[in-house]
Amino acid sequence: MSASKPVATAILQLICPDRPGLVSELSGWVAANGGNIRHADHHTDAGAGLFLSRIEWDLDGFGLPRPAIPAAVAALAGRLGGEGQVHFSDELPRVAIFVSKQTHCLVDLLWRTRAGELPMQVPLVIGNHPDLQAEAEAFGARFEHLPVSGATKAQVEARQLALLAEHGIELVVLAKYMQVLSGDFLAAFQSKGPHDHRVINIHHSFLPAFKGAQPYHRAWERGVKLIGATAHYVTEDLDDGPIIEQSIVHVSHRDEVADLIRKGRDCERLALARALRLHLRREVMVYRGRTAVFQ
Amino acid sequence: MSASKPVATAILQLICPDRPGLVSELSGWVAANGGNIRHADHHTDAGAGLFLSRIEWDLDGFGLPRPAIPAAVAALAGRLGGEGQVHFSDELPRVAIFVSKQTHCLVDLLWRTRAGELPMQVPLVIGNHPDLQAEAEAFGARFEHLPVSGATKAQVEARQLALLAEHGIELVVLAKYMQVLSGDFLAAFQSKGPHDHRVINIHHSFLPAFKGAQPYHRAWERGVKLIGATAHYVTEDLDDGPIIEQSIVHVSHRDEVADLIRKGRDCERLALARALRLHLRREVMVYRGRTAVFQ
Amino acid sequence: MSASKPVATAILQLICPDRPGLVSELSGWVAANGGNIRHADHHTDAGAGLFLSRIEWDLDGFGLPRPAIPAAVAALAGRLGGEGQVHFSDELPRVAIFVSKQTHCLVDLLWRTRAGELPMQVPLVIGNHPDLQAEAEAFGARFEHLPVSGATKAQVEARQLALLAEHGIELVVLAKYMQVLSGDFLAAFQSKGPHDHRVINIHHSFLPAFKGAQPYHRAWERGVKLIGATAHYVTEDLDDGPIIEQSIVHVSHRDEVADLIRKGRDCERLALARALRLHLRREVMVYRGRTAVFQ
Amino acid sequence: MSASKPVATAILQLICPDRPGLVSELSGWVAANGGNIRHADHHTDAGAGLFLSRIEWDLDGFGLPRPAIPAAVAALAGRLGGEGQVHFSDELPRVAIFVSKQTHCLVDLLWRTRAGELPMQVPLVIGNHPDLQAEAEAFGARFEHLPVSGATKAQVEARQLALLAEHGIELVVLAKYMQVLSGDFLAAFQSKGPHDHRVINIHHSFLPAFKGAQPYHRAWERGVKLIGATAHYVTEDLDDGPIIEQSIVHVSHRDEVADLIRKGRDCERLALARALRLHLRREVMVYRGRTAVFQ
Repeated sequence: MSASKPVATAILQLICPDRPGLVSELSGWVAANGGNIRHADHHTDAGAGLFLSRIEWDLDGFGLPRPAIPAAVAALAGRLGGEGQVHFSDELPRVAIFVSKQTHCLVDLLWRTRAGELPMQVPLVIGNHPDLQAEAEAFGARFEHLPVSGATKAQVEARQLALLAEHGIELVVLAKYMQVLSGDFLAAFQSKGPHDHRVINIHHSFLPAFKGAQPYHRAWERGVKLIGATAHYVTEDLDDGPIIEQSIVHVSHRDEVADLIRKGRDCERLALARALRLHLRREVMVYRGRTAVFQ
Repeated sequence: MSASKPVATAILQLICPDRPGLVSELSGWVAANGGNIRHADHHTDAGAGLFLSRIEWDLDGFGLPRPAIPAAVAALAGRLGGEGQVHFSDELPRVAIFVSKQTHCLVDLLWRTRAGELPMQVPLVIGNHPDLQAEAEAFGARFEHLPVSGATKAQVEARQLALLAEHGIELVVLAKYMQVLSGDFLAAFQSKGPHDHRVINIHHSFLPAFKGAQPYHRAWERGVKLIGATAHYVTEDLDDGPIIEQSIVHVSHRDEVADLIRKGRDCERLALARALRLHLRREVMVYRGRTAVFQ
Repeated sequence: MSASKPVATAILQLICPDRPGLVSELSGWVAANGGNIRHADHHTDAGAGLFLSRIEWDLDGFGLPRPAIPAAVAALAGRLGGEGQVHFSDELPRVAIFVSKQTHCLVDLLWRTRAGELPMQVPLVIGNHPDLQAEAEAFGARFEHLPVSGATKAQVEARQLALLAEHGIELVVLAKYMQVLSGDFLAAFQSKGPHDHRVINIHHSFLPAFKGAQPYHRAWERGVKLIGATAHYVTEDLDDGPIIEQSIVHVSHRDEVADLIRKGRDCERLALARALRLHLRREVMVYRGRTAVFQ
Repeated sequence: MSASKPVATAILQLICPDRPGLVSELSGWVAANGGNIRHADHHTDAGAGLFLSRIEWDLDGFGLPRPAIPAAVAALAGRLGGEGQVHFSDELPRVAIFVSKQTHCLVDLLWRTRAGELPMQVPLVIGNHPDLQAEAEAFGARFEHLPVSGATKAQVEARQLALLAEHGIELVVLAKYMQVLSGDFLAAFQSKGPHDHRVINIHHSFLPAFKGAQPYHRAWERGVKLIGATAHYVTEDLDDGPIIEQSIVHVSHRDEVADLIRKGRDCERLALARALRLHLRREVMVYRGRTAVFQ
């Protein structure tokens, strides 16, 4: 059902208490306004009594003018006692990528953006090392080198937040950034509260195995036969944010730590690219620390 | 969204020409009758202008009495210019399994049925060899030994059809049957016409590679690095029926043909069991020689 | 290189300090005795300075009579300052399977044994519940029901050890036994010391994630996108023994805990069966808490 | 067993008629010259009566001077009635990459070369379209734009061969070149005869399924649930050369042809990169139209 032609669509994401009739009510609202539904996905979390819905419809022919839709969606969500948001497929979010020294994830994301796989703009790349300046600038992004140390962290994060605001950034991707963002940073950037998830990280293990530092070394020590990577939203609880995508690869006794790192790079860039694509297409919804992925 | 409690549901499968408003119309129909929708999945084949829908709702509290639902669904489908059918999750279909000498698929299917993974009854097992009589009878199924030869094929198929009718069989599973069913047999058993798919086969290759006989030998000769299995609906065009599920496994130069056969058995039973579960839960819809799998 | 004909072979497994010339020395020893090598695999752990070797050769035509081979191998290993053992492919080990209430692993292992996939004998099945008596006896194994409670554990383990001795058991497989074996039991059964690994367990998570109890519930809570199973040798450190094989399957937000358990069963039986086959073919060697798998 | 330090090694690849004692003879030859073996892998094709061996040993401390090794290996192979060759791990082969318009494989291969994953030099990129000139030149490779048409093919191939000779190219990689090389070209470049395999292609299907043109369109039409990519040596028989590596990805009814192409790109670049790494590390041996992959 992927749109083969670039037709602009509206995408509704709504979470509310479960009760009978919600699917009908939501699709009826779209239909009453003349909208042609392309995708409609729903999920009920029976334990929590929650209903999640993602509905995508053509903007062409829809009765409400685009600027009026967000307020109408908010009113609809309010009537249902829940929260809703709407995105438009032709409005490319502005994304900042945070990096350190490793190139593979950044190069991959920029290549996929150019190739049309990732519907986003990347005006800004921030590195705590200067190594990836050339890659960022070749793409047309501004590169900011902001070294981080324990003493300067608060100051650097303030500068990062200023840059994000200046560039109108909606989403931050940690592409092997190797630094922990503070709770203050997260609260400031995700200002709509605890349900506002706008930072995606790639962790180099299949979480929750090997949380924390040096997962490949620890995986080698443990003698596992599979290693992996996990793309997740960042929360204050390190490596415990909602998981979007996981990828694994087989390893053997022949593989040294360096081989795990090499094989892991392919897992990392695939998991991160897939997760980011899902997010950008508004196919991910977060609830109770977990994600529903409608694809 | 899998129901953790065995609550009886109705499952609507509908195919009709695409037009705006269908999602709303179908879910509105369920809601108008007081139905609480558990799952609603849709797919549009833009090229063919077709709309496919699967909606599952609780029977408890639904306004129409169960016996009245099929006619109401037929009327609804008729209004939309399409075809619809409804199944009830607590009515276990009667399934016949056709076998030859190999045990792995039959043993696996019967074990899964007992374990509650496959919502079906198996009153009948037909073998063209007598080898699996004990397995069938230990499960409580009647075993019929009907040897097939070129000369007797028509006669044997007539007997098979009589047995299927006698036992009220709704679905036939070819669990390594190793015989081709005639077009006449298929037409007689799938009497509602070309869209009536009620025979599932497991083919021991990742189709369309290695159609026909001895796929493992040919895979070994070709030196492939992956082998697989394909579960599909049976049509008159051998090995060309709509694919439901495919499974693969890695092989290496160390594997002899016997190893491919051994590894392939695991692929075969997994692919067949998954496909059958999808079918039994009415999660598969066939259109234009392809399947939509709503899971 | 899998033997398509059941020709009897000798299999040498040797670990010794690494130094130049070992591959030549070992293969030279086989050749000097007229042995035709079918497989020769080696691994060097550079960090530990260890050399591991597995060599398999035809017994037919070998210069030493079978009864003289173990002593000759011990002498060879002694000269190299290491440890060696030899097995003969036509001597099927006697294996006891410990079970609780779940059937899937036991049924699978017994089916594979009958099908010739697992070269072993199973004279004994021990259950802490009586549920699997019929499955064991249908195979021809003796079933012993030995309920375990905190108070009786030591006494029950003494009885288990007596049964293992009585039946000449070489290997114990915990096929969803759901009980922890004491260090005393392990020491008594694996009497050759800490390098003697003769108990294989299947754990229902991709270790080291979700060690301990109820891994599927915890995986669901965490919202992972992959679940798995791990077959490993049992040591005193619960869930920390050397890993032989791991298997995973994708899950989604649609899967309830019951679905994770169902999907996990397929992972469990595949990982356990593969690990057991590797062990029985003497393709696994343990060193430093890890395994080398020569396949 | 991957070397974590960049120690120079010699790698012997030998094929000869099978007979007892070969493993001992080969490893004895290395040991007799003072070589410390790092890896020794062997395979016997019982049906063909062939023995294949790959032995890798440290050059440091080896008794023969490097320039004398090739002749000694040829003499050794001659004594065994077979063919042998030796490579040195610190001599990076000169590779030419042939491209058309698609960037993903070229960008990936160049990135991996820079990252040290692919031990090779890339002095030359040949495109039948000019699109990838910038990527090639940014890497430091010469880019030659040689458009191909039916009328000019022979002439263009002559020019290609001249460029390969001029740049001392040992291996050609077809990275989505989308053109068929003539038998004359292959014979001229692989001048040592039918066993000389020096052209690697990536085909965008899991061969032998969907040989020929437009495999993604045909896969979509067929409704397969898996698509894949195949890296193979190129022979005169189109898409029938020895397979080195295959990679697959799951697809569903939701995926349009454009999605198959997008997902397939990840398969293609992974399969090609893995195959190329195997080749460059001399871990692939070809026999009877198949490959043995020692990794």
